[in-house]
Amino acid sequence: MISHKIPGETIQRLPKYLRRLLTCSKQGLTAISSRKLGELLGVNPWQIRKDLSYFGDFGTRGVGYEIETLVTEIKKILNLTHTRNAALVGLGNLGSAVLAYQGFKPYGFEIAAIFDVDAKKIGRKINNVTVEDASKIKTLKKRKIELAIVAVPRPAAQQTADALVKAGIRGILNFSPCYIVVPKKVKVITIDIAMDLARLPYYMPRG
Amino acid sequence: MISHKIPGETIQRLPKYLRRLLTCSKQGLTAISSRKLGELLGVNPWQIRKDLSYFGDFGTRGVGYEIETLVTEIKKILNLTHTRNAALVGLGNLGSAVLAYQGFKPYGFEIAAIFDVDAKKIGRKINNVTVEDASKIKTLKKRKIELAIVAVPRPAAQQTADALVKAGIRGILNFSPCYIVVPKKVKVITIDIAMDLARLPYYMPRG
Repeated sequence: MISHKIPGETIQRLPKYLRRLLTCSKQGLTAISSRKLGELLGVNPWQIRKDLSYFGDFGTRGVGYEIETLVTEIKKILNLTHTRNAALVGLGNLGSAVLAYQGFKPYGFEIAAIFDVDAKKIGRKINNVTVEDASKIKTLKKRKIELAIVAVPRPAAQQTADALVKAGIRGILNFSPCYIVVPKKVKVITIDIAMDLARLPYYMPRG
Repeated sequence: MISHKIPGETIQRLPKYLRRLLTCSKQGLTAISSRKLGELLGVNPWQIRKDLSYFGDFGTRGVGYEIETLVTEIKKILNLTHTRNAALVGLGNLGSAVLAYQGFKPYGFEIAAIFDVDAKKIGRKINNVTVEDASKIKTLKKRKIELAIVAVPRPAAQQTADALVKAGIRGILNFSPCYIVVPKKVKVITIDIAMDLARLPYYMPRG
């Protein structure tokens, strides 16, 4: 059903549409035009229509999108239709910040396993999850966890990824500032905050 | 010189091209084709040529891009030609992770000011920078710091942004999971890791 001609950037924008639609829905709105949605998001309405057109015909001319329907459709497209348990590897500053972050819930993510190598952290309980030794990563397969967030120091990133892949993980959100190599069937998204900081000055005064 | 028809996503990709070119340069390469660069980045070579074509004609057919030249040109485009001091507001887990992160240097960023409201943190010295009370944000104008990284809890995000704007800040990298409202002349880039996590399942098995 899903063609592989869909640009990665379309997939990158869909969660943003979804987040904004959820907010609109909370505010009591039931329908929204691509123009209005585009305005709220700072995205060209044409882009929104184009992105959604890859997957079907969701809007009505003159009326716009029915918000509840579009939320359901985007969740289907993004494969966000059920709750997903995720594992967090690395409980340093960044891992702790990820845990403290409350924004995963609306998308059905639940951090259900935490791993670290520090004996002082292992056994601690955070949000009802007990921190485990990283050697236990291999138990993820049995626990049907397919999603992992990697927040380990750079030198440990590849071996962590290897262990996760061996444990059947299919998606990795990588915070370690380096490329990690995984088999094709595993998707890695690397977050490098320098890349975001590096595009800010473009919009700032030149001197 | 720079048209406003340049898509935000082009600007989003340029730092990634730059990062990869810097790596290639370190490896001793002097020229690279858009095909090879695209392969390394998982980006369509056509996209790379298109992105760069907004700014000039940098490649030679059959040879590709001269790496050193292209690095210089992209730095010019991105306004990364000189070192830029940045302020960090919020020294919680996330702020500490940002400080520990070593990836800003190649782009000329230097965290030269740190602010928090916690009396236990104020006065501490980190990477040779003394943590200051958030009330001192107003001194940034005098110190010619125009770039800020906001890593404060959500309820403090807007008032932090207001103080930064008042102090002459022109670019904000916002880690607080909320929209902040600023005047048009200030550019905000908000990092919401849920948005990245939310597009992972698209690439994972459906069940």
